[in-house]
Amino acid sequence: MCELLGMSANVPTDICFSFSGLLERGGNTGPHKDGWGITFYEGKGCRTFKDPLPSCESEIAKLVKHYPIKSCSVISHIRQGNRGEVCLENTHPFTRELWGKEITYAHNGQLSDYDDLQPEFYQPVGDTDSELAFCWLLDEIRKKFTVKPQDMAPVFLYAAQLAPQLKAKGVFNMLLTDGEHLLAYCSNNLHWITRRAPFGKASLIDVDVIIDFQKETTPNDVVTVIATRPLTENEDWHKIEEGEFKLFKLGELI
Amino acid sequence: MCELLGMSANVPTDICFSFSGLLERGGNTGPHKDGWGITFYEGKGCRTFKDPLPSCESEIAKLVKHYPIKSCSVISHIRQGNRGEVCLENTHPFTRELWGKEITYAHNGQLSDYDDLQPEFYQPVGDTDSELAFCWLLDEIRKKFTVKPQDMAPVFLYAAQLAPQLKAKGVFNMLLTDGEHLLAYCSNNLHWITRRAPFGKASLIDVDVIIDFQKETTPNDVVTVIATRPLTENEDWHKIEEGEFKLFKLGELI
Repeated sequence: MCELLGMSANVPTDICFSFSGLLERGGNTGPHKDGWGITFYEGKGCRTFKDPLPSCESEIAKLVKHYPIKSCSVISHIRQGNRGEVCLENTHPFTRELWGKEITYAHNGQLSDYDDLQPEFYQPVGDTDSELAFCWLLDEIRKKFTVKPQDMAPVFLYAAQLAPQLKAKGVFNMLLTDGEHLLAYCSNNLHWITRRAPFGKASLIDVDVIIDFQKETTPNDVVTVIATRPLTENEDWHKIEEGEFKLFKLGELI
Repeated sequence: MCELLGMSANVPTDICFSFSGLLERGGNTGPHKDGWGITFYEGKGCRTFKDPLPSCESEIAKLVKHYPIKSCSVISHIRQGNRGEVCLENTHPFTRELWGKEITYAHNGQLSDYDDLQPEFYQPVGDTDSELAFCWLLDEIRKKFTVKPQDMAPVFLYAAQLAPQLKAKGVFNMLLTDGEHLLAYCSNNLHWITRRAPFGKASLIDVDVIIDFQKETTPNDVVTVIATRPLTENEDWHKIEEGEFKLFKLGELI
């Protein structure tokens, strides 16, 4: 399996703290050593750093951990491969352009009997079940919405409606974003927390790091973090129930 | 204007030497300080590092310069913006998936009167003439080839046939790759060199660096580098003539 990390915020925020915790699970405190990736949205654009090397050894992961890129929407993934070999094209997150918007996706889980997923418009580059499912989702969205909707929220709600068809094929925990909305669909394991004023301190589970969010934030900041398993030990994370989803827009649950 | 750099090789090769020269032109020996980007193909996948900061100041550019990523196909670009503001979504190279292949593109030049470019299938994320032209090219390719051809060479030859329509709108120097083929279309400035055994030494024009390729290569290596202006001072670069193109496949001119 893999681990997912997502962030949705109302002001550009760096994810160095949470990412530091996740990285340890990529071959150190966790077995997810088959590559990692992270996508940051900045304005309408996004950039992805990825590496088929274990995150705990990756030079690029070190840069990302120490170089604060501020973003309102982030998706990250560390991989323990099952379907598809360890290589760059099988490394999450995956991004495709839809209606002039960058759409980014990462998946935790494993699917079976997916031969009926035959996307036409978008096609997978690698050979993971995950990327195939992403292409299928986008294809279905393009079929449903023949023109670009003014508001993207209905598109994400439709993706959440489609997700149970993928969950029926196995385990399908998913993060999906356009840089403004972030959809978290849960098959079995996905947790979230929204931090807002008054901010407190938090300590990571996987590495001995404590952060005082009070010092890093302004009173109006709203920052939601989503992760396969809680990343901090002294905060209350909400579990998303099986087959349920949460849709966030710029940090707030909608 | 901007500067382009491309590499096509028959074995995975690092581009650190050439990239070091290009970087200096990003705000140091050249005025191209409005961002930079580089895309490396590894297997069927590719990864892009980009930054709207000047390349000579960018932390990420420093990593790319010192961390040798070996690739058979690379496209890089440093930007001096004209159409579109300085931001991530306007930073080259641009990548889109076509028939399950990552297609990457960068453009040097400026276009006018491009309102008739109305791509449907692919749409630009940013507001540059460059990305619009890329989307239009891919749209035209999808219209021409209704199913994925076995051999991608005819697709690149078709792109070269389309390019004069873009050149007619201004200046259009372009690099386009699928990781195996690399098309270089010249509007006014594009040079290339193929290095093969016996390898010699080369010294960069923009920074005091000399490399002995003999020590870095094996006798069967074939490495072509394409750049807006020659990057080395002691080698003979070929100029591509106005309106002409060169198509390379894994280092060799085809």
